Amino acid sequence: MPNITHTISTAVEIKSAMPAITSLDGLNSWWTNETTGNPVEGGVLEFRFGGGGPDMKVEKVTESEVIWRVISGPEEWLDSTIEFRFEKNESGDTALYFTHRGWAAETPFHYHCSMKWASFMLSLKEYLDLGEGRPFPNDIQIDGPTVKRTN
Amino acid sequence: MPNITHTISTAVEIKSAMPAITSLDGLNSWWTNETTGNPVEGGVLEFRFGGGGPDMKVEKVTESEVIWRVISGPEEWLDSTIEFRFEKNESGDTALYFTHRGWAAETPFHYHCSMKWASFMLSLKEYLDLGEGRPFPNDIQIDGPTVKRTN
Repeated sequence: MPNITHTISTAVEIKSAMPAITSLDGLNSWWTNETTGNPVEGGVLEFRFGGGGPDMKVEKVTESEVIWRVISGPEEWLDSTIEFRFEKNESGDTALYFTHRGWAAETPFHYHCSMKWASFMLSLKEYLDLGEGRPFPNDIQIDGPTVKRTN
Repeated sequence: MPNITHTISTAVEIKSAMPAITSLDGLNSWWTNETTGNPVEGGVLEFRFGGGGPDMKVEKVTESEVIWRVISGPEEWLDSTIEFRFEKNESGDTALYFTHRGWAAETPFHYHCSMKWASFMLSLKEYLDLGEGRPFPNDIQIDGPTVKRTN
């Protein structure tokens, strides 16, 4: 299965990093600022991007891991899982292993989503490191003109 | 096989984008500024990152596609291929489909390389769009502290 896999690390402790994934405030700060719903295990999260977007069932929340399952959204995402696993790495930092698991094929949309997830991982790292991420609609652009950044 | 797949697009025409992959000047401008060797079909390219790094045999160069094969470097990369395919997309822009093909497993290094390739795709897009990328050693950091950018 052509999973999407990314990793970043941060000096922030796992306990302090988890709310980026397990709270609405956190999710609104790095993925999309149109995040609503219930981020606890068993809840449903709605992520919107200027209109459409996926709904996720929160399947698992532990002290260092979160798994969501896509219950509504783009056809290629249906029943796939989005997985966040934090662990302490050799240098004592917190590594995040991100997996979007369950794709059927390496379609152009798969290429697109792999690239977008990576750009949102950079946003998440900035949020964890600096307190400010780049969630939609101010997300890093992979299409269209590159705007010279002022920060 | 757990391939790494990414895509970006740019307004630059395919003919003008190709030298980013097929010339030393181009490669030095977005991946690593320690790139030497011969970028034509049949040649060997040496990419270094402050010391070590992979050697690639240039297997294929067409008007819109480049394929390299890893002949020396990290063990998990040996005999894998790095593939760049440009095509015109629906909006008339140039899409680049990037594939690092031939990984044996989703190891931590696979997660790392997927994320780093994505960050170098952003560098490549900035180079194509603005004339300036972020090659090693000034590459986007996915570990360690995030430095507030001034540009």
